[in-house]
Amino acid sequence: MLALGIDIGGTNARAAVVEPVTGRLVSSAKEALVDRSPAAVVAVVAALVERVSRGHDVARAPVGVGFAGMLRGDVVVNAPNLHWRDVDFGGPLARALGRPVRLVNDLSAAAWGELSGGAARGARDTFTVFVGTGVGSAIISGGRLLSGATGVAAEFGHVKLVAEGGRRCGCGEHGCLEAYMGGAKLTEWMAESGVAGTPSDLERLALQGDAPAKGLYDFAVGHLALAIANQVTVLNPAVVVLGGGVLSRCPGMVRRVTDVVMTRASAASRQGLEVKLAELGDDSGLVGAALLAQG
Amino acid sequence: MLALGIDIGGTNARAAVVEPVTGRLVSSAKEALVDRSPAAVVAVVAALVERVSRGHDVARAPVGVGFAGMLRGDVVVNAPNLHWRDVDFGGPLARALGRPVRLVNDLSAAAWGELSGGAARGARDTFTVFVGTGVGSAIISGGRLLSGATGVAAEFGHVKLVAEGGRRCGCGEHGCLEAYMGGAKLTEWMAESGVAGTPSDLERLALQGDAPAKGLYDFAVGHLALAIANQVTVLNPAVVVLGGGVLSRCPGMVRRVTDVVMTRASAASRQGLEVKLAELGDDSGLVGAALLAQG
Repeated sequence: MLALGIDIGGTNARAAVVEPVTGRLVSSAKEALVDRSPAAVVAVVAALVERVSRGHDVARAPVGVGFAGMLRGDVVVNAPNLHWRDVDFGGPLARALGRPVRLVNDLSAAAWGELSGGAARGARDTFTVFVGTGVGSAIISGGRLLSGATGVAAEFGHVKLVAEGGRRCGCGEHGCLEAYMGGAKLTEWMAESGVAGTPSDLERLALQGDAPAKGLYDFAVGHLALAIANQVTVLNPAVVVLGGGVLSRCPGMVRRVTDVVMTRASAASRQGLEVKLAELGDDSGLVGAALLAQG
Repeated sequence: MLALGIDIGGTNARAAVVEPVTGRLVSSAKEALVDRSPAAVVAVVAALVERVSRGHDVARAPVGVGFAGMLRGDVVVNAPNLHWRDVDFGGPLARALGRPVRLVNDLSAAAWGELSGGAARGARDTFTVFVGTGVGSAIISGGRLLSGATGVAAEFGHVKLVAEGGRRCGCGEHGCLEAYMGGAKLTEWMAESGVAGTPSDLERLALQGDAPAKGLYDFAVGHLALAIANQVTVLNPAVVVLGGGVLSRCPGMVRRVTDVVMTRASAASRQGLEVKLAELGDDSGLVGAALLAQG
Protein backbone atom coordinates (compact mmCIF):
# COMPACT_ATOMS: atom_id res chain seq x y z
CA MET A 1 0.00 0.00 0.00
CA LEU A 2 1.29 3.47 -0.88
CA ALA A 3 2.09 5.77 2.03
CA LEU A 4 1.99 9.54 2.50
CA GLY A 5 4.90 11.49 3.95
CA ILE A 6 5.06 15.12 5.05
CA ASP A 7 8.18 17.03 6.01
CA ILE A 8 7.78 20.34 7.81
CA GLY A 9 10.92 22.45 7.88
CA GLY A 10 11.49 26.02 8.96
CA THR A 11 10.81 27.50 5.50
CA ASN A 12 8.98 24.84 3.45
CA ALA A 13 6.55 22.00 3.79
CA ARG A 14 6.83 19.04 1.44
CA ALA A 15 4.52 16.11 0.80
CA ALA A 16 5.02 12.89 -1.12
CA VAL A 17 3.34 9.65 -2.04
CA VAL A 18 5.87 6.91 -1.31
CA GLU A 19 6.17 3.27 -2.34
CA PRO A 20 6.20 0.83 0.55
CA VAL A 21 9.47 -0.94 1.49
CA THR A 22 11.66 0.74 -1.17
CA GLY A 23 10.62 4.26 -0.21
CA ARG A 24 10.65 5.42 -3.84
CA LEU A 25 8.84 8.78 -4.34
CA VAL A 26 5.79 8.34 -6.57
CA SER A 27 4.81 12.02 -6.52
CA SER A 28 5.89 15.01 -4.47
CA ALA A 29 5.18 18.70 -3.98
CA LYS A 30 6.60 21.61 -1.98
CA GLU A 31 5.15 24.85 -0.65
CA ALA A 32 6.77 27.76 1.18
CA LEU A 33 5.57 28.44 4.73
CA VAL A 34 4.83 32.15 4.60
CA ASP A 35 2.50 32.19 7.57
CA ARG A 36 3.90 29.86 10.23
CA SER A 37 0.87 29.81 12.50
CA PRO A 38 -0.33 26.26 13.23
CA ALA A 39 -3.66 26.83 11.44
CA ALA A 40 -1.89 28.14 8.31
CA VAL A 41 0.53 25.18 8.31
CA VAL A 42 -2.39 22.75 8.60
CA ALA A 43 -4.00 24.40 5.55
CA VAL A 44 -0.75 24.24 3.52
CA VAL A 45 -0.25 20.58 4.38
CA ALA A 46 -3.86 19.69 3.52
CA ALA A 47 -3.49 21.38 0.11
CA LEU A 48 -0.17 19.58 -0.51
CA VAL A 49 -1.71 16.22 0.37
CA GLU A 50 -4.50 16.84 -2.09
CA ARG A 51 -2.02 17.75 -4.85
CA VAL A 52 0.27 14.73 -4.43
CA SER A 53 -2.67 12.34 -4.02
CA ARG A 54 -4.30 13.04 -7.39
CA GLY A 55 -4.37 9.89 -9.51
CA HIS A 56 -3.07 7.68 -6.69
CA ASP A 57 -5.01 5.32 -4.49
CA VAL A 58 -4.04 6.87 -1.15
CA ALA A 59 -7.41 7.81 0.37
CA ARG A 60 -6.74 5.45 3.27
CA ALA A 61 -2.95 5.70 3.34
CA PRO A 62 -1.46 6.51 6.73
CA VAL A 63 0.18 9.94 6.99
CA GLY A 64 3.57 10.42 8.63
CA VAL A 65 4.69 13.94 9.46
CA GLY A 66 8.37 14.66 10.06
CA PHE A 67 9.02 17.62 12.33
CA ALA A 68 12.20 19.40 13.40
CA GLY A 69 11.46 19.49 17.08
CA MET A 70 10.51 17.69 20.22
CA LEU A 71 7.19 15.85 20.03
CA ARG A 72 4.88 14.09 22.46
CA GLY A 73 2.10 12.22 20.71
CA ASP A 74 0.09 14.78 18.71
CA VAL A 75 1.73 17.73 20.45
CA VAL A 76 4.73 19.68 19.19
CA VAL A 77 6.45 20.39 22.50
CA ASN A 78 9.08 22.63 20.96
CA ALA A 79 9.88 23.46 17.33
CA PRO A 80 12.47 26.26 17.38
CA ASN A 81 12.30 26.84 13.57
CA LEU A 82 8.59 27.65 13.78
CA HIS A 83 8.71 29.24 17.25
CA TRP A 84 6.06 26.75 18.41
CA ARG A 85 5.75 25.53 21.99
CA ASP A 86 3.17 22.98 23.14
CA VAL A 87 1.10 23.17 19.97
CA ASP A 88 -1.49 20.44 19.33
CA PHE A 89 -0.75 20.00 15.65
CA GLY A 90 -1.61 16.32 15.14
CA GLY A 91 -5.25 16.73 16.20
CA PRO A 92 -6.22 19.59 13.82
CA LEU A 93 -4.20 18.04 10.98
CA ALA A 94 -5.92 14.65 11.41
CA ARG A 95 -9.30 16.39 11.32
CA ALA A 96 -8.33 18.39 8.19
CA LEU A 97 -7.12 15.24 6.41
CA GLY A 98 -9.92 13.02 7.69
CA ARG A 99 -7.55 10.30 8.86
CA PRO A 100 -4.99 9.58 11.60
CA VAL A 101 -1.55 11.15 11.35
CA ARG A 102 1.68 10.25 13.12
CA LEU A 103 4.14 12.97 14.06
CA VAL A 104 7.78 11.87 14.04
CA ASN A 105 11.01 13.67 14.79
CA ASP A 106 12.69 14.67 11.52
CA LEU A 107 15.96 12.92 12.39
CA SER A 108 14.13 9.70 13.26
CA ALA A 109 12.33 9.98 9.93
CA ALA A 110 15.58 10.59 8.06
CA ALA A 111 17.29 7.65 9.77
CA TRP A 112 14.35 5.41 8.90
CA GLY A 113 14.35 6.63 5.29
CA GLU A 114 18.08 5.88 4.94
CA LEU A 115 17.51 2.41 6.43
CA SER A 116 14.68 1.68 4.01
CA GLY A 117 15.98 3.07 0.76
CA GLY A 118 19.25 4.89 1.36
CA ALA A 119 22.77 4.51 2.75
CA ALA A 120 21.84 1.90 5.39
CA ARG A 121 19.57 -0.33 3.28
CA GLY A 122 19.33 -3.75 4.91
CA ALA A 123 20.95 -2.77 8.23
CA ARG A 124 19.12 -3.18 11.55
CA ASP A 125 21.47 -1.13 13.74
CA THR A 126 22.44 2.39 12.70
CA PHE A 127 23.61 5.64 14.22
CA THR A 128 22.58 8.64 12.11
CA VAL A 129 24.10 12.09 12.69
CA PHE A 130 23.01 15.16 10.74
CA VAL A 131 24.92 18.42 11.07
CA GLY A 132 23.09 21.33 9.51
CA THR A 133 21.86 24.42 11.32
CA GLY A 134 21.89 22.21 14.43
CA VAL A 135 23.21 18.76 15.29
CA GLY A 136 20.72 15.91 15.49
CA SER A 137 20.86 12.14 15.64
CA ALA A 138 18.74 9.02 15.65
CA ILE A 139 19.50 5.50 16.85
CA ILE A 140 18.03 2.39 15.28
CA SER A 141 18.71 -0.73 17.34
CA GLY A 142 17.62 -4.18 16.21
CA GLY A 143 15.37 -2.61 13.58
CA ARG A 144 13.59 -0.26 16.03
CA LEU A 145 13.98 3.41 16.73
CA LEU A 146 15.40 3.93 20.19
CA SER A 147 13.14 6.48 21.84
CA GLY A 148 14.15 6.30 25.51
CA ALA A 149 12.12 6.40 28.71
CA THR A 150 10.37 9.70 27.89
CA GLY A 151 10.84 9.89 24.11
CA VAL A 152 13.78 12.32 24.12
CA ALA A 153 16.65 9.93 23.35
CA ALA A 154 19.37 10.66 20.77
CA GLU A 155 19.74 14.35 21.61
CA PHE A 156 23.32 14.00 20.43
CA GLY A 157 23.61 17.73 19.71
CA HIS A 158 23.34 18.31 23.45
CA VAL A 159 26.10 16.03 24.74
CA LYS A 160 28.52 18.26 26.61
CA LEU A 161 32.09 18.70 25.41
CA VAL A 162 33.33 20.16 28.69
CA ALA A 163 32.62 19.36 32.33
CA GLU A 164 31.60 22.93 33.20
CA GLY A 165 30.54 26.04 31.30
CA GLY A 166 31.33 26.29 27.62
CA ARG A 167 29.64 28.18 24.80
CA ARG A 168 25.96 28.93 25.18
CA CYS A 169 23.68 26.71 23.13
CA GLY A 170 20.28 27.49 21.61
CA CYS A 171 18.77 25.10 24.18
CA GLY A 172 19.76 27.50 26.97
CA GLU A 173 22.52 25.31 28.41
CA HIS A 174 26.28 25.61 27.95
CA GLY A 175 28.94 23.43 26.37
CA CYS A 176 26.69 21.38 24.04
CA LEU A 177 28.21 19.88 20.87
CA GLU A 178 25.66 21.92 18.86
CA ALA A 179 26.95 25.17 20.43
CA TYR A 180 30.28 24.54 18.64
CA MET A 181 29.46 22.38 15.64
CA GLY A 182 25.89 23.31 14.57
CA GLY A 183 26.04 25.52 11.45
CA ALA A 184 24.28 28.46 13.11
CA LYS A 185 26.45 28.53 16.24
CA LEU A 186 29.65 27.68 14.36
CA THR A 187 29.10 30.66 12.05
CA GLU A 188 28.53 32.88 15.13
CA TRP A 189 31.72 31.57 16.73
CA MET A 190 33.66 32.14 13.49
CA ALA A 191 32.47 35.76 13.33
CA GLU A 192 33.51 36.35 16.96
CA SER A 193 36.93 34.90 16.15
CA GLY A 194 37.41 37.00 13.02
CA VAL A 195 36.95 34.13 10.56
CA ALA A 196 34.47 35.27 7.90
CA GLY A 197 32.13 33.07 5.89
CA THR A 198 30.36 29.74 6.11
CA PRO A 199 31.41 26.38 7.63
CA SER A 200 32.66 25.47 4.11
CA ASP A 201 34.91 28.54 4.17
CA LEU A 202 36.13 27.48 7.62
CA GLU A 203 37.05 24.05 6.27
CA ARG A 204 38.91 25.54 3.30
CA LEU A 205 40.85 28.00 5.50
CA ALA A 206 41.63 25.35 8.13
CA LEU A 207 42.92 22.90 5.54
CA GLN A 208 45.07 25.73 4.10
CA GLY A 209 46.61 26.14 7.56
CA ASP A 210 45.05 29.47 8.63
CA ALA A 211 45.72 29.43 12.38
CA PRO A 212 42.48 30.89 13.84
CA ALA A 213 40.36 28.85 11.41
CA LYS A 214 42.33 25.68 12.20
CA GLY A 215 41.87 26.23 15.95
CA LEU A 216 38.10 26.41 15.68
CA TYR A 217 37.85 23.64 13.10
CA ASP A 218 40.04 21.20 15.02
CA PHE A 219 38.15 21.79 18.25
CA ALA A 220 34.66 21.48 16.75
CA VAL A 221 35.29 18.69 14.24
CA GLY A 222 37.64 16.82 16.57
CA HIS A 223 35.03 16.74 19.31
CA LEU A 224 32.27 15.76 16.87
CA ALA A 225 34.43 12.91 15.57
CA LEU A 226 35.42 11.59 19.02
CA ALA A 227 31.82 11.79 20.24
CA ILE A 228 30.64 9.77 17.23
CA ALA A 229 33.45 7.21 17.76
CA ASN A 230 32.39 6.81 21.40
CA GLN A 231 28.75 6.27 20.41
CA VAL A 232 29.94 3.54 18.03
CA THR A 233 31.66 1.86 21.01
CA VAL A 234 28.46 2.10 23.05
CA LEU A 235 25.82 1.37 20.37
CA ASN A 236 27.73 -1.04 18.06
CA PRO A 237 25.88 0.03 14.88
CA ALA A 238 26.45 -1.65 11.50
CA VAL A 239 26.39 1.72 9.72
CA VAL A 240 27.04 5.31 10.78
CA VAL A 241 25.05 7.58 8.44
CA LEU A 242 26.28 11.19 8.16
CA GLY A 243 24.22 13.94 6.59
CA GLY A 244 22.84 17.46 6.85
CA GLY A 245 23.75 20.72 5.12
CA VAL A 246 27.12 21.22 6.82
CA LEU A 247 28.49 17.67 6.54
CA SER A 248 27.26 17.23 2.97
CA ARG A 249 29.20 20.35 1.91
CA CYS A 250 32.36 19.70 3.97
CA PRO A 251 34.11 16.51 2.76
CA GLY A 252 37.06 17.19 5.07
CA MET A 253 34.77 16.88 8.09
CA VAL A 254 33.42 13.56 6.82
CA ARG A 255 36.98 12.29 6.29
CA ARG A 256 38.01 13.37 9.78
CA VAL A 257 34.98 11.74 11.40
CA THR A 258 35.58 8.52 9.45
CA ASP A 259 39.28 8.42 10.39
CA VAL A 260 38.60 9.01 14.09
CA VAL A 261 35.76 6.48 14.22
CA MET A 262 37.92 3.86 12.51
CA THR A 263 40.80 4.35 14.96
CA ARG A 264 39.12 5.37 18.25
CA ALA A 265 35.93 3.29 18.43
CA SER A 266 36.54 0.02 20.33
CA ALA A 267 38.28 -2.61 18.20
CA ALA A 268 35.30 -4.98 18.27
CA SER A 269 32.73 -2.29 17.40
CA ARG A 270 34.60 -1.02 14.33
CA GLN A 271 34.97 -4.48 12.78
CA GLY A 272 32.80 -4.50 9.67
CA LEU A 273 31.49 -1.00 10.47
CA GLU A 274 30.62 1.33 7.59
CA VAL A 275 30.60 5.14 7.80
CA LYS A 276 28.53 6.52 4.91
CA LEU A 277 27.02 9.76 3.67
CA ALA A 278 23.22 9.89 3.61
CA GLU A 279 21.97 9.10 0.11
CA LEU A 280 18.42 10.42 0.02
CA GLY A 281 19.32 14.08 0.54
CA ASP A 282 16.25 16.17 1.26
CA ASP A 283 13.97 13.18 0.62
CA SER A 284 15.04 11.06 3.60
CA GLY A 285 12.64 12.71 6.04
CA LEU A 286 9.67 12.46 3.67
CA VAL A 287 10.37 8.81 2.91
CA GLY A 288 11.01 7.88 6.51
CA ALA A 289 7.93 9.67 7.86
CA ALA A 290 5.75 7.89 5.29
CA LEU A 291 7.22 4.45 6.04
CA LEU A 292 7.13 4.97 9.82
CA ALA A 293 3.43 5.86 9.62
CA GLN A 294 2.88 2.64 7.72
CA GLY A 295 4.33 0.82 10.75
CA MET B 1 8.83 -21.89 37.20
CA LEU B 2 12.07 -21.65 39.18
CA ALA B 3 15.21 -20.75 37.21
CA LEU B 4 18.88 -21.59 37.60
CA GLY B 5 21.59 -18.95 37.51
CA ILE B 6 25.36 -19.35 37.38
CA ASP B 7 27.92 -16.60 37.80
CA ILE B 8 31.50 -17.31 36.76
CA GLY B 9 34.00 -14.79 38.06
CA GLY B 10 37.78 -14.80 38.04
CA THR B 11 38.10 -16.55 41.41
CA ASN B 12 34.73 -18.15 42.21
CA ALA B 13 31.76 -19.77 40.56
CA ARG B 14 28.33 -19.36 42.14
CA ALA B 15 25.02 -21.05 41.42
CA ALA B 16 21.50 -20.28 42.60
CA VAL B 17 17.92 -21.36 42.26
CA VAL B 18 15.93 -18.20 41.64
CA GLU B 19 12.24 -17.32 41.84
CA PRO B 20 10.73 -16.08 38.58
CA VAL B 21 9.84 -12.36 38.22
CA THR B 22 11.02 -11.29 41.69
CA GLY B 23 14.46 -12.83 41.31
CA ARG B 24 14.55 -13.89 44.97
CA LEU B 25 17.30 -16.46 45.72
CA VAL B 26 15.80 -19.77 46.87
CA SER B 27 19.14 -21.51 47.41
CA SER B 28 22.70 -20.69 46.45
CA ALA B 29 26.23 -22.08 46.66
CA LYS B 30 29.76 -20.94 45.87
CA GLU B 31 32.98 -22.73 44.97
CA ALA B 32 36.51 -21.42 44.39
CA LEU B 33 37.96 -21.92 40.91
CA VAL B 34 41.34 -23.47 41.69
CA ASP B 35 41.84 -25.01 38.26
CA ARG B 36 40.61 -22.54 35.65
CA SER B 37 40.73 -24.90 32.66
CA PRO B 38 37.39 -25.07 30.84
CA ALA B 39 36.91 -28.76 31.72
CA ALA B 40 37.54 -28.10 35.42
CA VAL B 41 35.11 -25.15 35.43
CA VAL B 42 32.44 -27.31 33.78
CA ALA B 43 32.90 -29.88 36.56
CA VAL B 44 32.68 -27.24 39.31
CA VAL B 45 29.52 -25.74 37.81
CA ALA B 46 27.88 -29.16 37.40
CA ALA B 47 28.58 -29.97 41.07
CA LEU B 48 27.21 -26.55 42.16
CA VAL B 49 24.03 -27.07 40.13
CA GLU B 50 23.51 -30.42 41.79
CA ARG B 51 23.99 -28.87 45.25
CA VAL B 52 21.59 -25.94 44.81
CA SER B 53 18.97 -28.10 43.06
CA ARG B 54 18.44 -30.56 45.92
CA GLY B 55 14.87 -30.41 47.15
CA HIS B 56 13.74 -28.05 44.37
CA ASP B 57 11.81 -28.88 41.24
CA VAL B 58 14.36 -27.54 38.74
CA ALA B 59 15.16 -30.61 36.61
CA ARG B 60 13.85 -28.79 33.55
CA ALA B 61 14.70 -25.23 34.58
CA PRO B 62 16.67 -23.23 32.01
CA VAL B 63 20.24 -22.37 33.01
CA GLY B 64 21.69 -18.90 32.53
CA VAL B 65 25.44 -18.42 32.89
CA GLY B 66 26.87 -14.96 33.52
CA PHE B 67 30.41 -14.48 32.28
CA ALA B 68 32.88 -11.61 32.57
CA GLY B 69 33.89 -11.49 28.95
CA MET B 70 32.93 -11.28 25.33
CA LEU B 71 30.62 -14.06 24.17
CA ARG B 72 29.28 -15.29 20.86
CA GLY B 73 26.59 -17.95 21.30
CA ASP B 74 28.14 -20.88 23.19
CA VAL B 75 31.68 -19.58 22.70
CA VAL B 76 33.63 -17.45 25.17
CA VAL B 77 35.50 -15.22 22.71
CA ASN B 78 37.59 -13.57 25.41
CA ALA B 79 37.49 -13.84 29.21
CA PRO B 80 40.54 -11.99 30.53
CA ASN B 81 39.98 -13.14 34.16
CA LEU B 82 40.23 -16.80 33.13
CA HIS B 83 42.74 -16.27 30.30
CA TRP B 84 40.31 -17.95 27.90
CA ARG B 85 40.10 -17.15 24.19
CA ASP B 86 37.61 -18.77 21.81
CA VAL B 87 36.59 -21.51 24.23
CA ASP B 88 33.42 -23.50 23.47
CA PHE B 89 32.08 -23.53 27.02
CA GLY B 90 28.32 -23.64 26.40
CA GLY B 91 28.44 -26.95 24.49
CA PRO B 92 30.32 -29.04 27.10
CA LEU B 93 28.36 -27.42 29.96
CA ALA B 94 25.02 -28.21 28.29
CA ARG B 95 26.12 -31.84 27.87
CA ALA B 96 27.28 -32.05 31.50
CA LEU B 97 23.98 -30.60 32.77
CA GLY B 98 21.80 -32.48 30.29
CA ARG B 99 19.92 -29.36 29.20
CA PRO B 100 20.40 -26.15 27.19
CA VAL B 101 22.35 -23.29 28.74
CA ARG B 102 22.51 -19.63 27.78
CA LEU B 103 25.74 -17.67 28.23
CA VAL B 104 25.24 -13.98 29.01
CA ASN B 105 27.65 -11.15 29.60
CA ASP B 106 27.94 -10.51 33.35
CA LEU B 107 27.03 -6.82 33.05
CA SER B 108 23.96 -7.64 30.98
CA ALA B 109 23.00 -10.18 33.64
CA ALA B 110 23.55 -7.65 36.43
CA ALA B 111 21.52 -4.98 34.62
CA TRP B 112 18.70 -7.46 34.10
CA GLY B 113 18.83 -8.55 37.73
CA GLU B 114 18.61 -4.94 38.94
CA LEU B 115 15.65 -4.37 36.58
CA SER B 116 13.84 -7.45 37.88
CA GLY B 117 14.43 -7.27 41.58
CA GLY B 118 16.83 -4.43 42.36
CA ALA B 119 17.40 -0.70 41.98
CA ALA B 120 15.55 -0.39 38.66
CA ARG B 121 12.48 -2.50 39.45
CA GLY B 122 9.68 -1.60 37.06
CA ALA B 123 11.79 0.47 34.66
CA ARG B 124 12.06 -0.40 30.97
CA ASP B 125 14.98 1.87 30.09
CA THR B 126 18.17 1.75 32.14
CA PHE B 127 21.86 2.48 31.81
CA THR B 128 23.93 0.35 34.18
CA VAL B 129 27.59 1.16 34.87
CA PHE B 130 29.79 -1.00 37.08
CA VAL B 131 33.25 0.14 38.08
CA GLY B 132 35.29 -2.62 39.68
CA THR B 133 38.55 -4.05 38.36
CA GLY B 134 37.34 -2.81 34.98
CA VAL B 135 34.52 -0.58 33.75
CA GLY B 136 31.49 -2.25 32.19
CA SER B 137 27.99 -1.26 31.22
CA ALA B 138 24.71 -2.56 29.88
CA ILE B 139 21.84 -0.77 28.17
CA ILE B 140 18.22 -1.81 28.49
CA SER B 141 15.95 0.00 26.04
CA GLY B 142 12.20 -0.52 25.97
CA GLY B 143 12.60 -3.61 28.15
CA ARG B 144 15.22 -5.25 25.93
CA LEU B 145 18.97 -5.56 26.24
CA LEU B 146 20.65 -3.50 23.54
CA SER B 147 23.19 -5.83 21.95
CA GLY B 148 24.22 -3.98 18.79
CA ALA B 149 24.92 -5.19 15.26
CA THR B 150 27.54 -7.77 16.29
CA GLY B 151 26.73 -8.26 19.97
CA VAL B 152 29.48 -6.01 21.36
CA ALA B 153 27.43 -2.94 22.34
CA ALA B 154 27.82 -1.14 25.68
CA GLU B 155 31.61 -1.41 25.87
CA PHE B 156 31.49 1.79 27.87
CA GLY B 157 34.87 1.06 29.50
CA HIS B 158 36.44 1.54 26.10
CA VAL B 159 35.07 4.95 25.14
CA LYS B 160 38.07 7.20 24.60
CA LEU B 161 38.71 10.20 26.84
CA VAL B 162 41.21 11.81 24.48
CA ALA B 163 41.37 12.14 20.70
CA GLU B 164 44.84 10.58 20.42
CA GLY B 165 47.09 8.45 22.61
CA GLY B 166 46.38 8.28 26.32
CA ARG B 167 47.12 5.60 28.92
CA ARG B 168 47.38 2.03 27.69
CA CYS B 169 44.32 -0.10 28.44
CA GLY B 170 44.12 -3.85 29.05
CA CYS B 171 42.35 -4.14 25.68
CA GLY B 172 45.57 -3.10 23.93
CA GLU B 173 44.35 0.34 22.86
CA HIS B 174 45.07 3.73 24.43
CA GLY B 175 42.96 6.38 26.15
CA CYS B 176 40.02 4.16 27.20
CA LEU B 177 37.94 5.19 30.23
CA GLU B 178 38.90 1.87 31.86
CA ALA B 179 42.61 2.72 31.51
CA TYR B 180 42.02 5.60 33.98
CA MET B 181 39.02 4.60 36.02
CA GLY B 182 39.04 0.78 36.23
CA GLY B 183 40.25 -0.32 39.68
CA ALA B 184 43.24 -2.26 38.31
CA LYS B 185 44.54 0.51 36.05
CA LEU B 186 43.69 3.29 38.50
CA THR B 187 45.78 1.55 41.18
CA GLU B 188 48.67 1.25 38.68
CA TRP B 189 48.37 4.93 37.79
CA MET B 190 48.27 5.88 41.48
CA ALA B 191 51.48 3.89 42.15
CA GLU B 192 53.24 5.60 39.21
CA SER B 193 52.15 8.98 40.59
CA GLY B 194 53.34 8.24 44.12
CA VAL B 195 49.86 7.86 45.61
CA ALA B 196 49.80 4.63 47.64
CA GLY B 197 46.77 2.47 48.34
CA THR B 198 43.43 1.59 46.85
CA PRO B 199 40.84 3.70 44.97
CA SER B 200 39.16 4.25 48.38
CA ASP B 201 42.44 5.70 49.68
CA LEU B 202 42.61 7.90 46.57
CA GLU B 203 39.12 9.21 47.30
CA ARG B 204 39.98 9.96 50.93
CA LEU B 205 43.22 11.76 50.01
CA ALA B 206 41.59 13.70 47.16
CA LEU B 207 38.72 14.87 49.37
CA GLN B 208 41.33 15.93 51.98
CA GLY B 209 42.94 18.09 49.30
CA ASP B 210 46.15 16.12 48.64
CA ALA B 211 47.27 17.65 45.32
CA PRO B 212 48.56 14.59 43.38
CA ALA B 213 45.62 12.48 44.56
CA LYS B 214 43.17 15.24 43.65
CA GLY B 215 44.67 15.56 40.15
CA LEU B 216 44.18 11.87 39.38
CA TYR B 217 40.79 11.68 41.07
CA ASP B 218 39.37 14.73 39.33
CA PHE B 219 40.56 13.56 35.93
CA ALA B 220 39.29 9.99 36.27
CA VAL B 221 36.04 10.61 38.13
CA GLY B 222 35.30 13.82 36.19
CA HIS B 223 35.58 11.99 32.88
CA LEU B 224 33.53 9.03 34.15
CA ALA B 225 30.81 11.41 35.31
CA LEU B 226 30.69 13.46 32.07
CA ALA B 227 30.68 10.28 29.96
CA ILE B 228 27.71 8.94 31.96
CA ALA B 229 25.89 12.29 31.67
CA ASN B 230 26.37 12.22 27.89
CA GLN B 231 25.03 8.67 27.68
CA VAL B 232 21.96 9.84 29.58
CA THR B 233 21.47 12.53 26.89
CA VAL B 234 21.79 9.91 24.15
CA LEU B 235 19.92 6.98 25.75
CA ASN B 236 17.27 8.78 27.87
CA PRO B 237 17.08 6.06 30.54
CA ALA B 238 14.64 6.19 33.45
CA VAL B 239 17.30 4.96 35.87
CA VAL B 240 21.11 5.03 35.90
CA VAL B 241 22.29 2.09 38.05
CA LEU B 242 25.80 2.38 39.48
CA GLY B 243 27.64 -0.57 41.00
CA GLY B 244 30.84 -2.60 41.21
CA GLY B 245 33.59 -2.85 43.81
CA VAL B 246 35.05 0.61 43.30
CA LEU B 247 31.83 2.63 43.12
CA SER B 248 30.21 0.74 45.99
CA ARG B 249 33.18 1.63 48.25
CA CYS B 250 33.61 5.25 47.10
CA PRO B 251 30.53 7.33 47.97
CA GLY B 252 32.29 10.51 46.81
CA MET B 253 32.50 9.11 43.29
CA VAL B 254 28.79 8.28 43.31
CA ARG B 255 27.99 11.81 44.53
CA ARG B 256 30.16 13.36 41.81
CA VAL B 257 28.60 11.23 39.06
CA THR B 258 25.10 12.06 40.31
CA ASP B 259 25.84 15.80 40.46
CA VAL B 260 27.34 15.90 36.96
CA VAL B 261 24.53 13.81 35.45
CA MET B 262 21.91 16.04 37.05
CA THR B 263 23.53 19.23 35.70
CA ARG B 264 25.15 18.18 32.41
CA ALA B 265 22.75 15.67 30.84
CA SER B 266 20.29 17.41 28.48
CA ALA B 267 17.47 19.15 30.34
CA ALA B 268 14.78 16.88 28.88
CA SER B 269 16.67 13.64 29.59
CA ARG B 270 17.29 14.42 33.27
CA GLN B 271 13.64 15.20 34.01
CA GLY B 272 12.40 12.42 36.27
CA LEU B 273 15.72 10.58 35.98
CA GLU B 274 16.99 8.56 38.96
CA VAL B 275 20.65 7.74 39.65
CA LYS B 276 20.81 4.80 42.07
CA LEU B 277 23.29 2.36 43.54
CA ALA B 278 22.81 -1.28 42.56
CA GLU B 279 20.88 -3.10 45.29
CA LEU B 280 21.55 -6.77 44.68
CA GLY B 281 25.30 -6.61 45.28
CA ASP B 282 27.03 -9.82 44.25
CA ASP B 283 23.67 -11.46 43.51
CA SER B 284 22.65 -9.29 40.54
CA GLY B 285 24.55 -11.39 37.98
CA LEU B 286 23.17 -14.67 39.32
CA VAL B 287 19.61 -13.39 39.38
CA GLY B 288 19.83 -11.75 35.97
CA ALA B 289 21.43 -14.77 34.29
CA ALA B 290 18.69 -17.02 35.66
CA LEU B 291 15.88 -14.67 34.57
CA LEU B 292 17.42 -14.02 31.14
CA ALA B 293 17.63 -17.78 30.51
CA GLN B 294 13.97 -18.03 31.36
CA GLY B 295 13.29 -15.54 28.54
